[in-house]
Amino acid sequence: MIKIFDTENISVSEILKREQTSTGVEDIVAGVIADVRKNGDSALKEYTKKFDKADLDSLEVTGSEIEDAFVQVDDKFIDIIKKAKENIYNFHKHQVRNSFVISENDGIVLGQKVLPLQRVGLYVPGGTASYPSSVLMNCIPAKIAGVEEIVMTTPPRADGTINPVILAAAKIAGVGRIFKVGGSQAIAALAYGTESVPKVDKIVGPGNAFVAEAKRQVYGLVDIDMIAGPSEILIIADGTCNPEYVAADLLSQAEHDKLASAVLVTDSKELANAVSEQLEIQLRVLPREEIARTSIDNNGKIIITESIEKAVETANMIAPEHLEICVDNPFDYLDKVKNAGSVFLGKNCPEALGDYFAGPNHTLPTSGTARFSSPLSVDDFVKKTAFTYYTLDALSKVSEDIAYFAEKEGLSAHARSAVVRTRKKNS
Amino acid sequence: MIKIFDTENISVSEILKREQTSTGVEDIVAGVIADVRKNGDSALKEYTKKFDKADLDSLEVTGSEIEDAFVQVDDKFIDIIKKAKENIYNFHKHQVRNSFVISENDGIVLGQKVLPLQRVGLYVPGGTASYPSSVLMNCIPAKIAGVEEIVMTTPPRADGTINPVILAAAKIAGVGRIFKVGGSQAIAALAYGTESVPKVDKIVGPGNAFVAEAKRQVYGLVDIDMIAGPSEILIIADGTCNPEYVAADLLSQAEHDKLASAVLVTDSKELANAVSEQLEIQLRVLPREEIARTSIDNNGKIIITESIEKAVETANMIAPEHLEICVDNPFDYLDKVKNAGSVFLGKNCPEALGDYFAGPNHTLPTSGTARFSSPLSVDDFVKKTAFTYYTLDALSKVSEDIAYFAEKEGLSAHARSAVVRTRKKNS
Repeated sequence: MIKIFDTENISVSEILKREQTSTGVEDIVAGVIADVRKNGDSALKEYTKKFDKADLDSLEVTGSEIEDAFVQVDDKFIDIIKKAKENIYNFHKHQVRNSFVISENDGIVLGQKVLPLQRVGLYVPGGTASYPSSVLMNCIPAKIAGVEEIVMTTPPRADGTINPVILAAAKIAGVGRIFKVGGSQAIAALAYGTESVPKVDKIVGPGNAFVAEAKRQVYGLVDIDMIAGPSEILIIADGTCNPEYVAADLLSQAEHDKLASAVLVTDSKELANAVSEQLEIQLRVLPREEIARTSIDNNGKIIITESIEKAVETANMIAPEHLEICVDNPFDYLDKVKNAGSVFLGKNCPEALGDYFAGPNHTLPTSGTARFSSPLSVDDFVKKTAFTYYTLDALSKVSEDIAYFAEKEGLSAHARSAVVRTRKKNS
Repeated sequence: MIKIFDTENISVSEILKREQTSTGVEDIVAGVIADVRKNGDSALKEYTKKFDKADLDSLEVTGSEIEDAFVQVDDKFIDIIKKAKENIYNFHKHQVRNSFVISENDGIVLGQKVLPLQRVGLYVPGGTASYPSSVLMNCIPAKIAGVEEIVMTTPPRADGTINPVILAAAKIAGVGRIFKVGGSQAIAALAYGTESVPKVDKIVGPGNAFVAEAKRQVYGLVDIDMIAGPSEILIIADGTCNPEYVAADLLSQAEHDKLASAVLVTDSKELANAVSEQLEIQLRVLPREEIARTSIDNNGKIIITESIEKAVETANMIAPEHLEICVDNPFDYLDKVKNAGSVFLGKNCPEALGDYFAGPNHTLPTSGTARFSSPLSVDDFVKKTAFTYYTLDALSKVSEDIAYFAEKEGLSAHARSAVVRTRKKNS
């Protein structure tokens, strides 16, 4: 049963105390990374045999395997994937940034170039968490950014094949090469490169605790997207909402993972009770009932606030990954939202819309990091480089100032280099 | 003496092998963080007494201390700081991004809001590495982004005061509150908050190994800018360059730190030899000769390539923090630069221009991370939030597709939440 808190009796910060968790897999992962770094493909094949029960001659997916995938996946699903791709593309293309140049002062040109990352690695989990939507959400912004090569890794099934839905989504999204390797060994291969798997500049995509720890360990050598925590939804709903819909939306997060958290914040005690009842009714018919029930019982919360404004303040304190604002005039509150990954406005906007289809990314900041982090976007696949050009005349006008500044910082060689071209000329 | 490598005899990747270093301060820093988290201000005061020899009643810098600073710093320097501020402001204002909204389809509104971080912490080192330029470079982009409050921490001198130049720069740059605390204890205070020091959303600024390790340990709870490695310059110069200037620019990096690296890549053996000689001549007159000499001897390199094009390729492999392209037509090569933090174009553009004055940021990706990282910018002080609005009609048109997609991923509660509003209506 979900827990109900009334802010008349308990402070929001008390309700929200988060626990930190340690996965305890650091040493195992460090060992796998060292092994892959040293032994390359042969280590990858051994781990794949051990963990995925697949005995592979070649790690790379072939063109004919991809063609086969399109035969195996039904046409309706292919069409839906293509529609989703179009929506995701049309949203993310607005994130593209241009380089700029400033040439306003005599003999000075300044600018910033925006350049795509050259090679990106996309990790796609296998097994029950095999999500073609992740392939689209990670790959499409990278393509828009202009990344030259997108390399995907995903663990094979025991017969050495990959789920054809994943292969089809990868082809539609524009992945370049696909390798049959999963877990921390895949992350190691992408970070260091092996005979088969090319070294990348950035690794993106979700994964289990081993994958997350491996990403943490290779961060710095390559970039990573984020270390994602369990999925979260916070729904703000007023007394006019249908409790059946609110409960259905809460459960769509709860079914992800026993650690997922689903929180309702409402100004209506009636809605609080009605949603609590609906959760119990709907839980019984869910195929993933056990996962969802554990999530709701352990991490689910209904928080009663005195107003919808206070509910938005509470949401800002939690900084949820997903935020639904289920009221009749949701745009009234948009300016008040300070910390949230993705916001779903109004009563007809279940978060599932955003998981697959609407366009905005589903890779979002978790665990309160929406205070300072952003949804995955085209920005994550570019880097910026500044450039500066001065003529000798332009340099002459400022070199003494720069030398003065440098001497104040105790850096004489900086001062020297500022004036070596100009002071000599004047003397 | 600097080492000279000729790519006729040795491959670039062989020349470039980087070593990884471990600082071994992890446990000390973890202890300090735990102590500050538990004991707040009293822990901060104890560490400040122990490490900085300053016995403080109050940690916060007062208004009259800041006024005093302006009396102590000479007017010429105040003017130069203000000019630098203007240049930095004028460059970074071009980085501001707008929110966007898309309302192209019936009953659908999508968008992305760009929001400033609410509170940012700026770490400023004390002692010999007391750099007012860092205050400007970190603070100005945050102000442009719209950050509500910028909190600065810096270690006091033994008499409990702060270098007035730092205070003046902080005031000019727009810092809100300043605290007299340094080291890993300052990072802990900014990440967790104490009675005096408010908890921030992001910590930026340079620091020693303890500060860097503390930033690494609190990353995730708060955001950080980067873990900066030693400073680097790579100069591409052809045979027409004046070796005196090239050597002066190399030394401006070498004087930073014994671990700093200064690399010349040239197609001219004559220039290589002449620069090597000039380094020895100029080293002798540097106040920081010992540091610069160690840097040049241990990490300095001159690499001879067969052409300037090959030199640019070598620079792309190294992905240097600072890149000078000292040739007559430097813009000819700008499109070929793929990996560099900040590029200085032409023969009149010493990197020191960028350290203080020209406008682009001096906080730059080190250790080859320019492959995937960017200079500090306004982007580092904002976050993005996506939003989605659908009318019931708009939802009705896509809900069955979404449910189909969700079922393919084995997520029935997602499917339910997609159709709960629309399927009932149709039935």
